[in-house]
Amino acid sequence: MTPAARRPRISIVQAGLHVGETVEIPGWLYNLRRSGKIAFPILRDGTGILQCVAVKSQLPESLFESVKGLTQESSIIVTGRIRQEPRAPGGYELDLENLEIFQRVPEAEPYPITPKEHGIDFLLDHRHLWLRSRRQHAVLKIRHEISRAIRDYLDSHGFTLLDTPVFTPAACEGTTTLFEVNYFDHEKVYLTQSGQLYNEATAMAFGKVYTFGPTFRAERSKTRRHLTEFWMVEPEMAYATLEDVKQVAEELIVFVVGRVLENRRAELAVLERDVSKLENIKAPFPRMSYDQAVELLHQKGSEIQWGADFGGTDETLLGEDFNLPVMVDRFPTAIKAFYMQPDPERPEVALGVDVLAPEGYGEIVGGGQRIHELDLLLRRIDEHGLPREAFDWYIDLRRFGTVPHGGFGMGLERCIAWICGLEHVRETIPFPRMLYRTRP
Amino acid sequence: MTPAARRPRISIVQAGLHVGETVEIPGWLYNLRRSGKIAFPILRDGTGILQCVAVKSQLPESLFESVKGLTQESSIIVTGRIRQEPRAPGGYELDLENLEIFQRVPEAEPYPITPKEHGIDFLLDHRHLWLRSRRQHAVLKIRHEISRAIRDYLDSHGFTLLDTPVFTPAACEGTTTLFEVNYFDHEKVYLTQSGQLYNEATAMAFGKVYTFGPTFRAERSKTRRHLTEFWMVEPEMAYATLEDVKQVAEELIVFVVGRVLENRRAELAVLERDVSKLENIKAPFPRMSYDQAVELLHQKGSEIQWGADFGGTDETLLGEDFNLPVMVDRFPTAIKAFYMQPDPERPEVALGVDVLAPEGYGEIVGGGQRIHELDLLLRRIDEHGLPREAFDWYIDLRRFGTVPHGGFGMGLERCIAWICGLEHVRETIPFPRMLYRTRP
Repeated sequence: MTPAARRPRISIVQAGLHVGETVEIPGWLYNLRRSGKIAFPILRDGTGILQCVAVKSQLPESLFESVKGLTQESSIIVTGRIRQEPRAPGGYELDLENLEIFQRVPEAEPYPITPKEHGIDFLLDHRHLWLRSRRQHAVLKIRHEISRAIRDYLDSHGFTLLDTPVFTPAACEGTTTLFEVNYFDHEKVYLTQSGQLYNEATAMAFGKVYTFGPTFRAERSKTRRHLTEFWMVEPEMAYATLEDVKQVAEELIVFVVGRVLENRRAELAVLERDVSKLENIKAPFPRMSYDQAVELLHQKGSEIQWGADFGGTDETLLGEDFNLPVMVDRFPTAIKAFYMQPDPERPEVALGVDVLAPEGYGEIVGGGQRIHELDLLLRRIDEHGLPREAFDWYIDLRRFGTVPHGGFGMGLERCIAWICGLEHVRETIPFPRMLYRTRP
Repeated sequence: MTPAARRPRISIVQAGLHVGETVEIPGWLYNLRRSGKIAFPILRDGTGILQCVAVKSQLPESLFESVKGLTQESSIIVTGRIRQEPRAPGGYELDLENLEIFQRVPEAEPYPITPKEHGIDFLLDHRHLWLRSRRQHAVLKIRHEISRAIRDYLDSHGFTLLDTPVFTPAACEGTTTLFEVNYFDHEKVYLTQSGQLYNEATAMAFGKVYTFGPTFRAERSKTRRHLTEFWMVEPEMAYATLEDVKQVAEELIVFVVGRVLENRRAELAVLERDVSKLENIKAPFPRMSYDQAVELLHQKGSEIQWGADFGGTDETLLGEDFNLPVMVDRFPTAIKAFYMQPDPERPEVALGVDVLAPEGYGEIVGGGQRIHELDLLLRRIDEHGLPREAFDWYIDLRRFGTVPHGGFGMGLERCIAWICGLEHVRETIPFPRMLYRTRP
């Protein structure tokens, strides 16, 4: 380490504001190219990547040797002059004048993730380090952008955020996929699978509401679309119909994709995402009924029977002609949750809607209109064999000023997988939780 | 119901944009005053409260009778002309022309929460309805404002949101207050008490990060400051010291209070909050060391011993002279978590800081600088009797490019309680979870 006068400390993303100035940037060594007379340490600091240029003839010998001996992920503070460089990825380079090594990762115990290919289990075991890689960094910057866009859309459209509880006494979507928690030895509670029932209560108090937090499903499936812990945004509106629900879902998706295109082009480029596919996402989305969808599937060779839920292949087939999310509504009442409003003109179908992402990404939104009539709700609870006592407060909402209402849930990770063009949802969340994966 | 031509449908908050127009507003009957010749149904719709005026001589008789017979929380759609009325709480009134009753709550089974006083257990049992009350509505609008302000501050200061997992294999702050979950019968996991350890990993990848989500503590305490499920925001920064942590905490608190004052004056008025107390919240906050705090407490008659943690009374005493949050740093290492960086000049105290809210609201922020040296961290893990294997990935962060770093956690509900001036945190969250409370 060479002592030097302190220079303004900046981050890489600010480089453009300091062209021609000598600055100090703390970060980590991402990569190093070198020859006998020149070395190019590449710095990452979490805000970007910057190539530095160290010229032997212009630096004290010990300093140049230090640069040449840097190892991957060593923590360093570089000092140097920012220069515009159109050929560099970010548009700038730094002519190195000094280097402070905070920790040099020893050759004997090197950073485990190298530019070579690693198996997925190895990478997931090293998720705490894998996050530093360029692709993972890009995915999670896009995740933040999407989360932010969702909140911005809802906050600016009159929705109030009401966080619904994780600890819930009753099951919302069936009991087989619940995680159970021992609550102080005096009772059992379950981890929420959806905030919807609570949203219905808050919607009656606030009109338009949403909840956005982690939800849990103990699904024993090992597919590329399933996590046991995932984030979901769920808007709910009082005095709303199925058509209102569809409109908000459509607007939200268009808004979110637009925001990513506006602010995260560089990250999409790192992921080699075909952005033309995203630029195509505009309203109106194609709409069809479940009946029409089944007919279309038959034309495409599927053997689905009326009354069955779509499988992953069906969802892909439905989406493939459009290059747009597809809205399918009026599913058979029998395969939908107890609270779904039957179509008054045809009670065997329910006023629910699924939105299927293009490119085979499957369902990203599920929602619809909820039952608002007290008698009908009680009948449906009984038909589903659910205990009325567990739903007493939920039933109350139909006793005291009930109104037509509806909403939907959008799975954050599936949205990210689609927008980023990823094969598996496991890369869409910082620390994925799956059937056989709870670490790190 | 009287048929009528459809008018533009608006919400109460938009009334000012439609003065002189006839509009339709869906909502619920909040209250009703009436005489023989005039009735004043007060409408709420989640965005505001609006007094309507129904004059017998100007309406069909059956319509006026319907208005007079309205019951609390009946769901109704009013049609009428918006008029400016400086004496009305929101500044507007509606001259009623038509009324559509969606559901009239019957007298035989009336809305259970009336303007009279109810006991807290009754209200908590009816939380799904209590949310409609004016005070609760105000508190939760402020909650949304605070959540939004926290995100806006962090997003605009270079922090990346990285959601940390709820399912965690290891305990962060001791094992006695953990909720355990049976994970598919093949292992046990715990519900997160803090995202900090994970934040340290993401900070090394992204520089400045935060997580903001529900956290869980199985505390058997029934105090006005404890929930078993509560929200916490936790920023973490690489290349940061205790002083950086203090600065961000101070700026964040000032920003959040400013936003509430800017956007939620009406709600603060509903809560009868003394806003001068909030207007006073400006940087710099008073700062003192633990040593100085103990001395101050002795002067105030406390018998606290050096080495002990503050109790609630101590926290109140420390804050009472300032009308500002107070920052206390350098607590005894022995009472702090294993990862806290000891002061290099005086290892018996740690580089941690607590921020105590004024007016007796206690600790709202806890944080500090984390240990970055590998050997020291290993020693501390051993001293605390923790299994190294459980922390292998966390230890890795000291092997591969370790840097000084730090951050803090701020409890959302305690912040809300303070800013709203509430006695108990149970009103700060839509559906509070406490030792003996998991419903509704």
